[in-house]
Amino acid sequence: MSELALAVFASETGTHLIRPPTGVRWAGHVRSFDAGAYERRLADAGFRFVARSARSFPRLLMAIHDPPPGLFLRGSGAPELLARPAVAIVGARACSGYGASVARTLARDLARAGLVVVSGLARGADAEAHRGALDAGGTTVAVLGCGIDRDYPAAHAELARRIAEGGLIVSEYAPGVEPAPWRFPARNRIVAGLAAATVVVEARERSGALITADLALEEGREVFAVPGEITSALSAGTNALLKLGASPLTCAADVLTCFGLEQANADEAPPGGESGRVLACLREGAASADELARATGLPAAAVARALVELELAGCVGCSDGRYRAG
Amino acid sequence: MSELALAVFASETGTHLIRPPTGVRWAGHVRSFDAGAYERRLADAGFRFVARSARSFPRLLMAIHDPPPGLFLRGSGAPELLARPAVAIVGARACSGYGASVARTLARDLARAGLVVVSGLARGADAEAHRGALDAGGTTVAVLGCGIDRDYPAAHAELARRIAEGGLIVSEYAPGVEPAPWRFPARNRIVAGLAAATVVVEARERSGALITADLALEEGREVFAVPGEITSALSAGTNALLKLGASPLTCAADVLTCFGLEQANADEAPPGGESGRVLACLREGAASADELARATGLPAAAVARALVELELAGCVGCSDGRYRAG
Repeated sequence: MSELALAVFASETGTHLIRPPTGVRWAGHVRSFDAGAYERRLADAGFRFVARSARSFPRLLMAIHDPPPGLFLRGSGAPELLARPAVAIVGARACSGYGASVARTLARDLARAGLVVVSGLARGADAEAHRGALDAGGTTVAVLGCGIDRDYPAAHAELARRIAEGGLIVSEYAPGVEPAPWRFPARNRIVAGLAAATVVVEARERSGALITADLALEEGREVFAVPGEITSALSAGTNALLKLGASPLTCAADVLTCFGLEQANADEAPPGGESGRVLACLREGAASADELARATGLPAAAVARALVELELAGCVGCSDGRYRAG
Repeated sequence: MSELALAVFASETGTHLIRPPTGVRWAGHVRSFDAGAYERRLADAGFRFVARSARSFPRLLMAIHDPPPGLFLRGSGAPELLARPAVAIVGARACSGYGASVARTLARDLARAGLVVVSGLARGADAEAHRGALDAGGTTVAVLGCGIDRDYPAAHAELARRIAEGGLIVSEYAPGVEPAPWRFPARNRIVAGLAAATVVVEARERSGALITADLALEEGREVFAVPGEITSALSAGTNALLKLGASPLTCAADVLTCFGLEQANADEAPPGGESGRVLACLREGAASADELARATGLPAAAVARALVELELAGCVGCSDGRYRAG
């Protein structure tokens, strides 16, 4: 049996197939499927397929209870990078400024320390996680719930291109498969399956990111949840995960310890002067530019200058007019 | 041995004494101490003393490894209320709007359900906890690190008066003892000792509230920590407590379950109309009035009106121009 034939059959029939089914439709597919021709077409499009039985198929993904027949790959990364120590970072699509900032900073620090950052290319926390890894010059893997030839969501086409430059975009679905809501939970099992640890940054109750966390827990993987304000609906899911026994994550080192790694030092020295004062203030908590001017006693123009410097240095993020230390 | 004599001796000598010491100074004190006259002076000032050996001395406080010789009491509450199911709510003095709002709302809900709310009358989270219990018409106990005749901090004199109306202000120190920083950890053991569960709302690293939590843990009491943003220094201590195994608290029911209690229903129906829309928006997360106007599509004046209504109904708190659902 060709695993490629099975992957294509599952994609075309819209079924979740781990092993070949019985029945005439499958038998007909096997008779007519030309694996060689299919692989040539894949290669012409710049894509590859790694079968479940291949040496380069990631061991951790092989270990889940329903590993896909194989993965379609897009990007210049070697299939072997899927075997490198990886962390999944997931969270709400409509995440808050807090969630976006934490996803990006965390991904940046973990990628800088050498971990591959896996996520789902979705809006919000997923995209920020990919961006953070790219900020650090690290490697990131996007797992799609559609074919790897689809840029979904369309707004992330440029992000997908940057991910593919040094990393991989992967899917169990054959090129041409359209995104469909029922495919996202299946995609999430691959996100969690590729990683030894999954971090949920922000999640509403009953959200997709919680499904990823559940799948990771079921497979005995480490699950971290980022604590958030109990008055924020976007942290209801993550705080509920903490109640269920997920490890609270407060810094990148929490994840790195799991992998026996230490935090890589950022190249830059900590900022001094006015920027240093503004950053020290932001380390106390999120604040608007006005609040920063009051708290530091600096003129508004100096605060604005410091914030631009700090944002460029990646030390500070901004969302809805509120700044946060990263 | 009179426990009153021991309490007064410990207060006058500034020592932490659980049992009578040896030495001439103690012997001299015992010879000259007139318990009857002292108690009359206490009564004249409206104060009482409950000795450790008295039936009304709270059983939970008796069970800690260093119970005080007794407690001085101020207020119209019966000493027996110290034996009622109680929760300690503590947190940072310079708490954020988030911490203040959570302390007050939580205390209100727990007091409404019948729990006595114990705290330390300090600025910030402590004061908000007392206020929340009073909002609900509940009973609250303030434990001081100085004599019960001292209103400390002075800004809380009026709050102390309200607490004393139906509850108690207690201290192991005799009237006249001045506040001193080294007495606060000792005070914290009484806060934790009076309660079956301690909630830390917000705390910096190495803060007094964490001492209270440690003492509670040492005595085998339940400790809850309220999750907060990992980018806020004011939640560093509480999030660290979560890592140490404290239970994450996201709602009053978490504490009530510990006591076998259920949440009392608020008297008010949930607000409808414009107030309802604003409240629904705030349940998503904290927001400024401007952000609320944008999110709800309501005119600024309508948002302002709704916020006043919601604040009066105790459904919403405000700090630094940001509103939070309570």
